[in-house]
Amino acid sequence: MNTGKRIEGVLAPVITPFNADMSPNVEKYVAHCKWLLANGCDGLAVFGTNSEANSLSVEERMMLLEALVDGGIDPAVLMPGTGCCALTDTVKLTSHAVKLGVAGAMMLPPFYYKNPSDEGLFRSYAEVIEKVGDDRLRIYLYHIPPVAQVGISLNLIEMLLKAYPKQTAGIKDSSGDWNNTDAMLKAFKEDFDVFAGNELILLANMRGGGVGCITATGNINPGPIHHLWENWKSDEADSLQASVTDFRKAVQQFPMIPALKTTVAHFSGDPAWKTLRPPLMGLSAEQEAALIAELEKRGFNMPALAA
Amino acid sequence: MNTGKRIEGVLAPVITPFNADMSPNVEKYVAHCKWLLANGCDGLAVFGTNSEANSLSVEERMMLLEALVDGGIDPAVLMPGTGCCALTDTVKLTSHAVKLGVAGAMMLPPFYYKNPSDEGLFRSYAEVIEKVGDDRLRIYLYHIPPVAQVGISLNLIEMLLKAYPKQTAGIKDSSGDWNNTDAMLKAFKEDFDVFAGNELILLANMRGGGVGCITATGNINPGPIHHLWENWKSDEADSLQASVTDFRKAVQQFPMIPALKTTVAHFSGDPAWKTLRPPLMGLSAEQEAALIAELEKRGFNMPALAA
Repeated sequence: MNTGKRIEGVLAPVITPFNADMSPNVEKYVAHCKWLLANGCDGLAVFGTNSEANSLSVEERMMLLEALVDGGIDPAVLMPGTGCCALTDTVKLTSHAVKLGVAGAMMLPPFYYKNPSDEGLFRSYAEVIEKVGDDRLRIYLYHIPPVAQVGISLNLIEMLLKAYPKQTAGIKDSSGDWNNTDAMLKAFKEDFDVFAGNELILLANMRGGGVGCITATGNINPGPIHHLWENWKSDEADSLQASVTDFRKAVQQFPMIPALKTTVAHFSGDPAWKTLRPPLMGLSAEQEAALIAELEKRGFNMPALAA
Repeated sequence: MNTGKRIEGVLAPVITPFNADMSPNVEKYVAHCKWLLANGCDGLAVFGTNSEANSLSVEERMMLLEALVDGGIDPAVLMPGTGCCALTDTVKLTSHAVKLGVAGAMMLPPFYYKNPSDEGLFRSYAEVIEKVGDDRLRIYLYHIPPVAQVGISLNLIEMLLKAYPKQTAGIKDSSGDWNNTDAMLKAFKEDFDVFAGNELILLANMRGGGVGCITATGNINPGPIHHLWENWKSDEADSLQASVTDFRKAVQQFPMIPALKTTVAHFSGDPAWKTLRPPLMGLSAEQEAALIAELEKRGFNMPALAA
């Protein structure tokens, strides 16, 4: 960040639309990003797990990021995922993103080799910081052990904060374990921005000193989640939390990435949105009908989606 | 393969030497590959797990593969690893390798998204085959669930053999579970070449109808392993197996990749060989001394290594 004030609020890990040949559909992508920002997202965590980013090449991610900036989106609201298995890929993506002026880089640890030591992961982040060599770099560690298998320990955060206090800006905690989020909030306080990995614990995260959430369902329900974030100190905060929790729980009965794409496809009338890169598979017809029924029961719509 | 006869024997997943700045040392790499072929390896499974291939970018792998061919190594002995998380990366690496005339591509499934369905993995391999679109492509599925977490089931092999009998050439089974190797040998017979993932089960694999092994310790002990492979029908086979088993067990007391690099560094007198890309870390001084003692106890040397 150039302003000194770091990004906060509700960020969506933006889903990535594909053409029939599985190339990214750039136009649709930019339009969805603009819709998200116009409808409640404070920022965009493009190239997260829910973006199928790990199914995209380095070049595809760079091309899409450039398309967003060229399309008029302020890079200061962007937090692209740049963490890959290969050190060289992470350095390349991160350098590129920082040069474009993004708010920060959401960075998975290298996740192929399992059970790395904290020292090994520290060296990995340190190498990226040194090789990128740009004072503007702000890293948001990406802790998602259920998928990456390789996680971020409190000890590692402490090592990074000590060596690189400016670059180590925060974390997305997608452990699904409130006790872990809570422990980070208590251990690191002001110097380190904790984003909850979903909105189920958004209010608890804010009350504990966190700064927001980065959530899959931000792709389809950004308004109410942002409203909760904005009003977390108000009397209605608990009831706002209950409402977004109810929505989230309805959606997460289904595999998340196809559920998000199916929702956008259905409510925008564009079935091509359902296209996934393998190994992901779409919902069955039964799942799709059940998902849409859950959403309609809640009066859900997506006004002027991707218009 | 162009000859109709597929690659077999003992293959090493070649370790990758790095310079101090962590770029690959091309000269040292080509020299080590030539040493392996001169000292017992029947082929080179470059860019395997033990090659730190998942810490290399697509461009680095292509550059190294070209350096081997330019350096005079027959591409028909090469089985490069080409399976990445991203479909586009796997297609690019595989196309490049096939065009160079390699024996086959050792292909991890996309391994970021966990618990994919067999149908999703089938679609992934099918997309690669269709997009590469080259009749010479031979795929060796890479089953290494302890690391990749995403594995290759018998059902998936059956689906692939049915749809793509020519391209589905075989498997490297690094499950570490003989029952799994045995089940594959019994299920698929002639049409499908089973490489054991290490030499501990090389003799059993050959007796069961397999074609060889792709093994980490092939980097340092290729001669005796090849000798066992060549003489698996002989009376001395069990004692040859016992000997390579003893060697392997001595080495695998230590973390494998740093152990291999430390061995080459020590016996070639070139400490730079110990350099690893993070998140991997080197052996401690105690581990290094213990490893070298184990090797010396066995009269180990590496004649004219990387000369």
